[in-house]
Amino acid sequence: MKRNLLLTPGPSKVPVELCEILGKPIIHHRTPQFQQVLKEVNDGLKKIIGTSSDVYLLASSGTGAMEAAVSNLLSPGDKAITVEYGKFGERWTELVKAYKAVPVVLKIQWGKAVTAEEIKAALAQNPDAKAVFLTQCETSTSVTPDLQAIGAVMKSGTAVLVADSVSALGTEPMAMDGWGVDVVCSGSHKGLMLPPGVGIVAVSAKAIAMIASSTNVRYYFDLRKSKKALADIDTPFTPAIGIVIALNEAIKMLLSEGLDKKQEYYLKMARAVWAAAEAMGLKVYADPKFRSRALTAIVIPEALNPKKIVKTMRDVHGITFAGGQGELDGKVVRIAHMGAVDEYDILTGLSCLEKVLKEAGHKFELGASLAAAQKVFNS
Amino acid sequence: MKRNLLLTPGPSKVPVELCEILGKPIIHHRTPQFQQVLKEVNDGLKKIIGTSSDVYLLASSGTGAMEAAVSNLLSPGDKAITVEYGKFGERWTELVKAYKAVPVVLKIQWGKAVTAEEIKAALAQNPDAKAVFLTQCETSTSVTPDLQAIGAVMKSGTAVLVADSVSALGTEPMAMDGWGVDVVCSGSHKGLMLPPGVGIVAVSAKAIAMIASSTNVRYYFDLRKSKKALADIDTPFTPAIGIVIALNEAIKMLLSEGLDKKQEYYLKMARAVWAAAEAMGLKVYADPKFRSRALTAIVIPEALNPKKIVKTMRDVHGITFAGGQGELDGKVVRIAHMGAVDEYDILTGLSCLEKVLKEAGHKFELGASLAAAQKVFNS
Repeated sequence: MKRNLLLTPGPSKVPVELCEILGKPIIHHRTPQFQQVLKEVNDGLKKIIGTSSDVYLLASSGTGAMEAAVSNLLSPGDKAITVEYGKFGERWTELVKAYKAVPVVLKIQWGKAVTAEEIKAALAQNPDAKAVFLTQCETSTSVTPDLQAIGAVMKSGTAVLVADSVSALGTEPMAMDGWGVDVVCSGSHKGLMLPPGVGIVAVSAKAIAMIASSTNVRYYFDLRKSKKALADIDTPFTPAIGIVIALNEAIKMLLSEGLDKKQEYYLKMARAVWAAAEAMGLKVYADPKFRSRALTAIVIPEALNPKKIVKTMRDVHGITFAGGQGELDGKVVRIAHMGAVDEYDILTGLSCLEKVLKEAGHKFELGASLAAAQKVFNS
Repeated sequence: MKRNLLLTPGPSKVPVELCEILGKPIIHHRTPQFQQVLKEVNDGLKKIIGTSSDVYLLASSGTGAMEAAVSNLLSPGDKAITVEYGKFGERWTELVKAYKAVPVVLKIQWGKAVTAEEIKAALAQNPDAKAVFLTQCETSTSVTPDLQAIGAVMKSGTAVLVADSVSALGTEPMAMDGWGVDVVCSGSHKGLMLPPGVGIVAVSAKAIAMIASSTNVRYYFDLRKSKKALADIDTPFTPAIGIVIALNEAIKMLLSEGLDKKQEYYLKMARAVWAAAEAMGLKVYADPKFRSRALTAIVIPEALNPKKIVKTMRDVHGITFAGGQGELDGKVVRIAHMGAVDEYDILTGLSCLEKVLKEAGHKFELGASLAAAQKVFNS
């Protein structure tokens, strides 16, 4: 009878309507029936991403989508700016190195995100950089940069702007064409409310030209093959059929609620969690200027043993938060407010967190976080 | 009320027990609960593959598993023998070229598979070849080579033997350690009865040594990362959680029936289909010496329009066969007898094929294929 509530920032909670679809028999992918699904998914993703460009589906996790961006855009020896303000920014640097290109690493203090001024300065110092790789929602620290402002300072240049939007897509606003983002990478298992297994890459005309001239090795993630297949409403290799079919429904659910309205709601949930943390005498890790609406990392004093708190919540109470990653390992707990998570889930999560914090000896008034969150939800 | 019966050789029929599991909420992958699943899946796959070596899971289709083999084993400039007797053999050659290694292409007439003697001769001519890449079940033509005999002629050499077992695993016998196969590549959506989304790579000690010395670029499919993660019962990147959980159950289903017995049954279904084809006055495409027990390609006279037959069966009757690929495009229909397919499914497929062939003007006695198959099933 124990709950199984995923409040982790990926995989995130899969709503029962999508579970039902995932539990249905699949169809073959090389059929007009599946082509109809692919077409609808493509059209829906274009709306969520804010682009009229191609959107490619991969059978992979989000990292596969990131690898597709790096291996298709760069050639060995190319210079690229990678921006690090958490674990996933570091992944861009690793990928650029793995593909024998040259990363110029722009390190930003964890808890903050990069600014347009910092990108402008980095590009002025590295006018030969082919690309800027950054993270729209840095899941390890719960920050988000002002992508619109960054796009604006890059619009006149030759470098492409590539966003890891794995945990941002659907939750944070994205206007790829309007803001001048060239490549958006994402996955099925965060804001899109599904299990992992589908990688997503949207590619601007500017990026497609760069892909055509890349000399890097690639096959499974070769976006030239994806482009060719998409022209026939197909994928180059067997897609993750079951998840793609459910993705069609997930997109319809998000769009039918109204994406702007839904994203306002994610922000409201985020504000509620920030207020709740404060009410328990805890600090939100992210700098207030850069806080993401997709998840919140809450600093837990080491004396309270944050790892044990996550473990007890999950194993005793069935409510799963994430712990810290990289330099935040053992220092924070992270709660998602993305995808299908709603305010009642957040209250459930906070209630359980209060219970376990109290047991761990933390001093605060029971119910304080619930009351604080409830005030924000109903403001 | 129309059926949705997948008799395609991947994706194959997903049994209702596995649909149910796919329709359940997932759990987070970095938890002891999921580690238990990973451990059981790993142990089960070792039994099915016949190995005590590492088995790695990827979030990818089968082609991702094939790419992992090529990109991890070879370095640029390395020579490798690729054996082509169908579309998937050609994929090995494409992958070896994509990774800037040098394929020595051993072309075998379609309809046949490679023999141990042919492999021996190719290796004698190319003693510097690092690897032999071949296809255990060539899904485009429905043939299978004698892998045991091939393993025997390669055992004393330095080259590794790599098998694309995507459509073979679970259905065709495999004794990786016993036969001397070094790398087995597979996927979730053929004999393992699930939707596509999980790639599988098993790697011998000899192959692991070669992987350690490869200088090829790789990141997402870097099996060194997989090896490191597996030591902690983990995957380097987010796995396709939902499919992995269901895979655990699929493996248990296969093993509890007894794999040998189940594989005898696949062979019986194959024989039934061969007899059924003959009873309709049609030819099985594959040479009798090399016929696979996983699927059968049946030659359809072009006057009967094989493409239209597949389309009518699927769109009017809800029963999906595959058409031909590559040089067999528009020449054959293919029916799977792998995974969860049983004799009643085969009779259903044959019945529908008879109906549609009759409408197309083919002359034969209605019911002849059913009677022929029924005799084999009950022999």
